[in-house]
Amino acid sequence: MRVVKQIPEMQTLSKEFRNSGKTIGLVPTMGYLHEGHMSLMRNLRDQCQVRVVSIFVNPTQFGPNEDLAKYPRDFDRDKQLCREEKVDVIFYPSSQKMYPPHYHTYIQVENLSEVMCGRSRPGHFRGVATVVAKLFNIINPHIAIFGEKDYQQVVVIRQMVNDLNFEVQILTSPIVRETDGLAMSSRNKYLTAAERKFAPVLYQSLLEAEKMCQRGIQNPAEIVEKMTALLNKIPQSRIDYISLVRPETLTPVEKIQGQVLVALAVYLGSTRLIDNIIIKGLLK
Amino acid sequence: MRVVKQIPEMQTLSKEFRNSGKTIGLVPTMGYLHEGHMSLMRNLRDQCQVRVVSIFVNPTQFGPNEDLAKYPRDFDRDKQLCREEKVDVIFYPSSQKMYPPHYHTYIQVENLSEVMCGRSRPGHFRGVATVVAKLFNIINPHIAIFGEKDYQQVVVIRQMVNDLNFEVQILTSPIVRETDGLAMSSRNKYLTAAERKFAPVLYQSLLEAEKMCQRGIQNPAEIVEKMTALLNKIPQSRIDYISLVRPETLTPVEKIQGQVLVALAVYLGSTRLIDNIIIKGLLK
Repeated sequence: MRVVKQIPEMQTLSKEFRNSGKTIGLVPTMGYLHEGHMSLMRNLRDQCQVRVVSIFVNPTQFGPNEDLAKYPRDFDRDKQLCREEKVDVIFYPSSQKMYPPHYHTYIQVENLSEVMCGRSRPGHFRGVATVVAKLFNIINPHIAIFGEKDYQQVVVIRQMVNDLNFEVQILTSPIVRETDGLAMSSRNKYLTAAERKFAPVLYQSLLEAEKMCQRGIQNPAEIVEKMTALLNKIPQSRIDYISLVRPETLTPVEKIQGQVLVALAVYLGSTRLIDNIIIKGLLK
Repeated sequence: MRVVKQIPEMQTLSKEFRNSGKTIGLVPTMGYLHEGHMSLMRNLRDQCQVRVVSIFVNPTQFGPNEDLAKYPRDFDRDKQLCREEKVDVIFYPSSQKMYPPHYHTYIQVENLSEVMCGRSRPGHFRGVATVVAKLFNIINPHIAIFGEKDYQQVVVIRQMVNDLNFEVQILTSPIVRETDGLAMSSRNKYLTAAERKFAPVLYQSLLEAEKMCQRGIQNPAEIVEKMTALLNKIPQSRIDYISLVRPETLTPVEKIQGQVLVALAVYLGSTRLIDNIIIKGLLK
């Protein structure tokens, strides 16, 4: 396994892979790897000949009052996990190389970036789109895979890829959960023991929403009301949003039918957690 | 010579060129080709094995009250000129394919896009950066060449290429002028006979600026004043801007020394013309 820190070295290496006819798959991450990331790597295994994992805590996707400084990092552990998974290359650039002085260029995916997580995190998806475009240009992958926990991120990236004509196939992997249902996230580390105990309520509220949809309830407001009641039982919690939207366009669902994405963000103390579920098979 | 209108066809063709080891050079244009464009094609001739000329009047770089609808177009003539120049491929996509319904993604090069032409044409360089990124992803050129008449455009594109890690070498070609000094432009066609007669005053004012710099005048305001007096002699004219800036950063020059870009935009009637000169060899 090769660890590449320099952008030109990565570009040269990718060119060598391409020239020798190898398919390059990319797993973009911010490190502090967990089972969710590992499942992305495993799901990519049969899709390509070379797997590149990028590890970069991208400053441009954090707001000024967010957790950039304290975001968990453990490169040695990440490296060990990638080695065990037989990853071919870790791309591990510095912030200084990714965003040199006088950096000025940003990619905005309009509409999709302003709802849900984008409402409480202005600039977040601009940072995501920008760094993903940079990684695509540096690593030049044939395929890139993203986790469905960040569902809105996937929708934003697909839109960017289509709009800017990137020739990268975007795959996704289902959310990986702890045994009690909590979606895996590097940010779970922030939770106190008391918060951790209540954290599975997020997923329970999503399952409740699914049950209600399947029972034939068609008014999204009823479902939001029920989820709100459940989530408000978590001490020191604050709901950022609960959204029922179309999974492809993120437009609000007016009547529960067809496919529905139920997504939420909730603060437990100062930690903001997100989760979602896609409800399929509803009558149109 | 091949004319390609479909994006996937162009992408496949570029892959074939790359796979057979050919260097691809791109001349992005909005068509209605003149000697300026032809000099770009000729200057690229020895730099690459395949020359692609894109012809696309890019709607996103025109403001709502600008000349998108009446921008001159003559594809048959353009095709003939490219054929005579032995261009390999014309990429000639439709607006509908380049910007399909629900198009949402835009690239902003901050700072550089807001001065000079960007001040009177808000959104212009956002449209330029966006379409150039799309062309780069579709045509995947090793080299692209731009005219120095649109000097600010070159600076914006270089910044985008560096920031987003595009592996495209950016070349430029000097301004090509009519015998009386008027910089070649597709928009010169808009000029009435009377306007055309006065149009060379733009370049004369730039030459006057150059002379003053070389005479040792160090106060930019003096030069702007002299240029303003000259330009105001053109009937029905209005100066949009006269800027003395550093060529790499477009920051205003406070004292004339080192390299200076003198750039201007002037309305002759309803036609907006731009021109510029780089003054080198001044004492530091």
